[in-house]
Amino acid sequence: MSRALDAVAENRAVDAWWRVLSRHPQQAHGVHEADAELVPWPGTSDLLAVTTDTIAEEIALGFYREPRTIGWMAATVSLSDLAAVGAEPVGVVLAVTLPRGTDESTREALAAGVEAACRACGTYVLGGDTNTGDATAVTATAVGRVPAGAAMTRTGARAGDALYVTGGLGAGGACAARAVLSLPDALYAERDYRPRARLAEGRLCAPFASACIDTSDGLVAALDQLGRLNDVGFEVDLAPSALLEPRARAVADALSVDPLAFLAQPHGEFELALTVPAGRTAALEAASRDAGVELARIGRVVDEPVLRFTAPRVRTLDGGRLRSLAEDLGRDARHYLAALLAELQRQ
Amino acid sequence: MSRALDAVAENRAVDAWWRVLSRHPQQAHGVHEADAELVPWPGTSDLLAVTTDTIAEEIALGFYREPRTIGWMAATVSLSDLAAVGAEPVGVVLAVTLPRGTDESTREALAAGVEAACRACGTYVLGGDTNTGDATAVTATAVGRVPAGAAMTRTGARAGDALYVTGGLGAGGACAARAVLSLPDALYAERDYRPRARLAEGRLCAPFASACIDTSDGLVAALDQLGRLNDVGFEVDLAPSALLEPRARAVADALSVDPLAFLAQPHGEFELALTVPAGRTAALEAASRDAGVELARIGRVVDEPVLRFTAPRVRTLDGGRLRSLAEDLGRDARHYLAALLAELQRQ
Repeated sequence: MSRALDAVAENRAVDAWWRVLSRHPQQAHGVHEADAELVPWPGTSDLLAVTTDTIAEEIALGFYREPRTIGWMAATVSLSDLAAVGAEPVGVVLAVTLPRGTDESTREALAAGVEAACRACGTYVLGGDTNTGDATAVTATAVGRVPAGAAMTRTGARAGDALYVTGGLGAGGACAARAVLSLPDALYAERDYRPRARLAEGRLCAPFASACIDTSDGLVAALDQLGRLNDVGFEVDLAPSALLEPRARAVADALSVDPLAFLAQPHGEFELALTVPAGRTAALEAASRDAGVELARIGRVVDEPVLRFTAPRVRTLDGGRLRSLAEDLGRDARHYLAALLAELQRQ
Repeated sequence: MSRALDAVAENRAVDAWWRVLSRHPQQAHGVHEADAELVPWPGTSDLLAVTTDTIAEEIALGFYREPRTIGWMAATVSLSDLAAVGAEPVGVVLAVTLPRGTDESTREALAAGVEAACRACGTYVLGGDTNTGDATAVTATAVGRVPAGAAMTRTGARAGDALYVTGGLGAGGACAARAVLSLPDALYAERDYRPRARLAEGRLCAPFASACIDTSDGLVAALDQLGRLNDVGFEVDLAPSALLEPRARAVADALSVDPLAFLAQPHGEFELALTVPAGRTAALEAASRDAGVELARIGRVVDEPVLRFTAPRVRTLDGGRLRSLAEDLGRDARHYLAALLAELQRQ
């Protein structure tokens, strides 16, 4: 398995843009190296953090059918990137494309979803742009501030660091499984999928973490990317089923599928995954207890370029291969799911 | 003619969002009142300026067929909004949706257009997000900084103020006419349409202007909106043909159409229109001469709620009516053009 960043198609696609675009000379990190873009705010020692994401493929795939989900997720996806760099949000701007003739109640529900996600994070929509098009698409751009020296990036993880996550995983997988397999609401309803950007957690962890990334593409993709960027690997000690949040675990149990599938598929749950040098773990855990912030130590950074789950039995995953399977998700989600489960049986 | 903001459909559509979304308590202006959103940057007396726009309808209408134009315009539209508040750009983030299977050369040309527009304004793309969808759409968000007290908004114009624009107008109309009427490249080529965001002009004018707006929707819409916001009107002394830049005038002449059509249609040229109190015009004109910045005094703010062109003959336009015609542009551009010309014959 190649450990190069460019072994992953998504990384190659991003690199292709940067063969044409020039980098801001003061940008505080390289391409791929942070969840949000970081540049100095003129005349201060602050960094501006800014990040933009479009919700469209999730709608086309049928993952988000309710306008309130679309709005909630548009804001959350970008705010989660601010969380992963340790920023405090300053505001959000929205670019919304709706089909001609979209009714008032749909627009209101979408706006209410955005509003609820922003207010849950203590921030506001500042303004935006509306367009008419064939398909619904919402692009949210979140702007935040990080005090000097307090930014987290994806680089800096070293062998021996501890690995933490900010909450139970697998909600993204449950949401996707619900749509692809037409699961009943009693098992998992669309409204059960309401990830909350971990802004407080990000700011709490920033002084302690060596690296951070959000699980917007699931835990396996997040750790694979961190591994490639830092030339390290990961051992996860918690069993995959123990990593799942209760409702996602219930879906895995009801379907009798490998709980790892919920971590290896690319629809994420927007928790933070962070690495912390051994000398700082006690202080971080004390700080998180004091703040009442959930934080689970799930494993460690290792020197080998592996992604290994050690419980209930040792399984070494090929993160690159699992990520490449996901490129086909947009073409046929049921086929992707079958391929993922077959691949996990081999790994 | 109602002078209320909500007599214009686009304003009503924006207001509908704000019945659901709450405003940032420190936002330095109301809805509709600035080209970019302005909020304090924490811990400083600076304002953050941020604005987002999607290029999609212009592609669907056939106005932009070359990927380089799409990229150039995506960056320019947002940077122009920064110019209109007097901001200096800090950077741009991009969200790009391309059809599956878009070839490498198309993506490169689009990126080259974004890069060229950013570098022309001394700024950079910081990062972004790419998606696959049915139609090409590019959302650019521009982030800028405005020092305390130096921001321009759309409010503050008073009767007696002088009216200025930062350059020749009508390029947007020429670009649209080219597409709708299949004009030959020799008359107006797509590459002739390369508006440049007037950032230096915005910063130069900010200390003198009472209000500012860009002509992203054309001069008539810009002045109509400024008039509604400030409960004033405008008299323009320059003849419409004299307001047109040379290539746009050549198109108007070749088609033998009323040059006012190029100012009243909604595809803009991204100049700034600004109002300046009489006591500051001499200082502004001296400053613009010193800086080598083009600035044309074209008329004045008046107390009546009118939009009047005084040369070569007096014509009083119904800005609200002209803007409402433009709502049909997306459905049938040739029909819109005929309706616009017929309406201008009546006004």
